[in-house]
Amino acid sequence: MKQIDFWFSIGSTYTYLSVARLIGVEEETGIRFDWRPFSVRELMIEMDNIPFLKKPAKAQYMWRDIERRAQKYGLGATLPAPYPLENFDLANRIAVIGRKEGWCRDYVVTTYRKWFQESQPAGSEPNLSESLIEINQHPERVIELANSDEIENEYRDATNQARSLGIFGSPTFIVGQELFWGDDRLEDAVSWAEGS
Amino acid sequence: MKQIDFWFSIGSTYTYLSVARLIGVEEETGIRFDWRPFSVRELMIEMDNIPFLKKPAKAQYMWRDIERRAQKYGLGATLPAPYPLENFDLANRIAVIGRKEGWCRDYVVTTYRKWFQESQPAGSEPNLSESLIEINQHPERVIELANSDEIENEYRDATNQARSLGIFGSPTFIVGQELFWGDDRLEDAVSWAEGS
Repeated sequence: MKQIDFWFSIGSTYTYLSVARLIGVEEETGIRFDWRPFSVRELMIEMDNIPFLKKPAKAQYMWRDIERRAQKYGLGATLPAPYPLENFDLANRIAVIGRKEGWCRDYVVTTYRKWFQESQPAGSEPNLSESLIEINQHPERVIELANSDEIENEYRDATNQARSLGIFGSPTFIVGQELFWGDDRLEDAVSWAEGS
Repeated sequence: MKQIDFWFSIGSTYTYLSVARLIGVEEETGIRFDWRPFSVRELMIEMDNIPFLKKPAKAQYMWRDIERRAQKYGLGATLPAPYPLENFDLANRIAVIGRKEGWCRDYVVTTYRKWFQESQPAGSEPNLSESLIEINQHPERVIELANSDEIENEYRDATNQARSLGIFGSPTFIVGQELFWGDDRLEDAVSWAEGS
């Protein structure tokens, strides 16, 4: 079965478009996506990559661009969504647990939907607990585990792995040795996977 | 007739893809493109927008991404092309003259072809004179005019106009009030123009 590694960070705005599209793409193409949470913020700070601060024209464009693309894809969106997120690390550590336990995709889709459609920041209440309850996970257990050293270490390991793969942004799609950055490269990644 | 304003800076790498594609898109769609040179560097410095310095992973990705897209579009490219350009301002001021005199597009297509296919930096010799000769312009006359206050002022005016339109990168396509940034938004801009 063809596979694409989907590296993402909850907290990235454009990642909403991919998160909301992937299940459909998977059904349409039969390609399996491996959902890989990591800290894009850590890598961006290392590279002094600050995409929107002090760049009001670019930030304004970003929301309009996401709005147009969400319309094009038939996705709901109440924009601008709350940004930046305060507790993105917690949200991503929960996704790390989800990957181990098999509910990563469901959690990420749910928390992004609440963030981008209901204006509830991911990683903070009520999004945090309600997303977990909606996917039949116990918030208290998951949040406690998300704050453990074990999960913190796995999150850091994932970020180190992302860095070593040459990843610098979210979302990133990896097909074999080829890296595709941005929701707008999803189709290219799919074509590459289908041709390889 | 439908029109798209094509704002660009010679010196931008991704702009090569648009420059090399626009004539074909124009023929295919009947949309007229107004070629608008400006200084994206000035606007990026204002916004502390430094896309590739200190970002080796991103720079490496950029060249690979351009290579894949050039292949997809059937465009030749010898990569990485010389970067950054030393004399991008001169190249852009020549494009400003070309816009007044009716040969902007031909100059930009030619100088980018030499830059991206023959590894000759735009704005420097031999690219500078050879591009002008190839489009039947006299290098001495054009270069002297390009260094005049008149053209310097027009270049600055164009950059000010770009800033006031909310432009922050090259290439940018403007359709009415809608701004589309990046070669990978050209199709969206065309769809918008066709639907508007």
